[in-house]
Amino acid sequence: MSNVSELPVVDCEMLADGAAWVDGRIVPIAEASIPVTDWGFTRSDVTYDVVHVWHGRFFRLEDHLDRFERSCRALRLDPGLDRDAMREVLMTCVRRSGLREAYVEMLCTRGVPRPGSRDPRLAKNRFMAFAIPFVWVLSPEIQARGGHLTISDVPRIPPQSVDPTVKNFHWGDLTRGLFQAYERGADTAVLVDMEGFVSEGPGFNVFCVRDGRVVSPGGTVLEGITRATVRELCELVGIPFSLGRVTPDELRDADEVFLSSTAGGIMPISRVDDRVLSNGRPGAVTTRLRDLYWVKHDEGWHGTDVDY
Amino acid sequence: MSNVSELPVVDCEMLADGAAWVDGRIVPIAEASIPVTDWGFTRSDVTYDVVHVWHGRFFRLEDHLDRFERSCRALRLDPGLDRDAMREVLMTCVRRSGLREAYVEMLCTRGVPRPGSRDPRLAKNRFMAFAIPFVWVLSPEIQARGGHLTISDVPRIPPQSVDPTVKNFHWGDLTRGLFQAYERGADTAVLVDMEGFVSEGPGFNVFCVRDGRVVSPGGTVLEGITRATVRELCELVGIPFSLGRVTPDELRDADEVFLSSTAGGIMPISRVDDRVLSNGRPGAVTTRLRDLYWVKHDEGWHGTDVDY
Repeated sequence: MSNVSELPVVDCEMLADGAAWVDGRIVPIAEASIPVTDWGFTRSDVTYDVVHVWHGRFFRLEDHLDRFERSCRALRLDPGLDRDAMREVLMTCVRRSGLREAYVEMLCTRGVPRPGSRDPRLAKNRFMAFAIPFVWVLSPEIQARGGHLTISDVPRIPPQSVDPTVKNFHWGDLTRGLFQAYERGADTAVLVDMEGFVSEGPGFNVFCVRDGRVVSPGGTVLEGITRATVRELCELVGIPFSLGRVTPDELRDADEVFLSSTAGGIMPISRVDDRVLSNGRPGAVTTRLRDLYWVKHDEGWHGTDVDY
Repeated sequence: MSNVSELPVVDCEMLADGAAWVDGRIVPIAEASIPVTDWGFTRSDVTYDVVHVWHGRFFRLEDHLDRFERSCRALRLDPGLDRDAMREVLMTCVRRSGLREAYVEMLCTRGVPRPGSRDPRLAKNRFMAFAIPFVWVLSPEIQARGGHLTISDVPRIPPQSVDPTVKNFHWGDLTRGLFQAYERGADTAVLVDMEGFVSEGPGFNVFCVRDGRVVSPGGTVLEGITRATVRELCELVGIPFSLGRVTPDELRDADEVFLSSTAGGIMPISRVDDRVLSNGRPGAVTTRLRDLYWVKHDEGWHGTDVDY
């Protein structure tokens, strides 16, 4: 692990679509795979985290590593690398891909069962990582007009069953929401929780702005690092921010709605179901926060340079 | 697909641990993998089914193919093979492995996203299958004394979020239950549903026997094909069978408890938490059903010969 940067050279062009770290070596993303018998697949017994690189800098790298390590501990997964080694693997994936704007994922699966065994404690856990071109939950074109969001009636898997603060691939409910969104002509969907309150969507937290205050659902959702960034930006410019319960009607009646995700940052919504928000355009508070989000990136806020 | 049996020959010894059908060819199970970017992994957007082979015969092959096709339709997944082609792939996996007792899995993933896309409708779905040596949820040694079962307080993911009748890999809750079982010195765990009634365990349905009647939880669980077999066997020998609600206390107070799974058939439980059932041995009704289950296998009941 200590000499991960001295790995055999792979043709750079092959890595421009993405570079993955698999079993101790860098391969093109198209060649990165896991065994079909890995419980990370057949039991979705896996955790992951995603950090992004913008203009050649990681954003909040240590926060993502913190959360990933917490998630691994919660699921009793051992990535087999210490913090410094993981950081170096992520750096290497980005460096070798040459990407200046990247979506960088680390993951740890339970691994392949011992023949005949059902016992997760006996499997050798598997760490992997990859860097691919930056991913947008809502494309820049959709963000320009504001995304169209539907509120799905599919309830998010409850925290009692699967802890949403440990990043996981249990997305069957979110995928159902996505299909509903496309059927209704929307761009994406937010789910409710088992009590009918607004929860989260496929890969994002949701926020509403009312009377100049920003509120986001708490409790039954991923504790998004971009959500934490939204809170910090609100504090910087003096916008009241809180976590709390949000009903579907409160979301539809909001002055503004926006999403947050590592995959896209702060993304405006201009329509919730049949309700047009902020005159069908990104709202003023959203735009202010989003502009600040990217300006702060340029300033190097929470940034870690990639050593290309 | 029509000439799947004319595929290039792979060394038979390499296939004895398992043979997989991947991208139109047979490979050793250890080489069978899926891309790390397949949504079947990163969104657990996949369905599957498992059929077993015993003494060279598939058991209820058409029932498993029926359910797999229903599951694919429910998730809008297209395996890209018709029924005859799928059957032939499964046959080929078993034949090429040479296994007389096998665990045979077919699965269909959403596939790899188009670059930058989040839309599951645009992905090319991926069908795979493999045959590996027969798998037991409880080993024959444990079955001889009766398994030790714990009732986990983790609620199974509710049907409103993820449909349990569509076989899926959303096992985070079941894995938590397994860890609890091992901590408590038990062999496996059954989960409760959101209302606290007994649900299902990692890969099995559960049954209790009381006053000569067999009852299994209905409604929020997988509609197991082995569960259907238990019902048929009960009808054959005149044991009353019903689906209904079962409380944790009813399970603990039962005369007998057993499990059913394609991976092991009918498996006796002799202990539920701290309660010893049927004098710490497999119970009489359970043993009768289990013996009949295997005798019927030998008779070719519901059987389809593998053309080795």
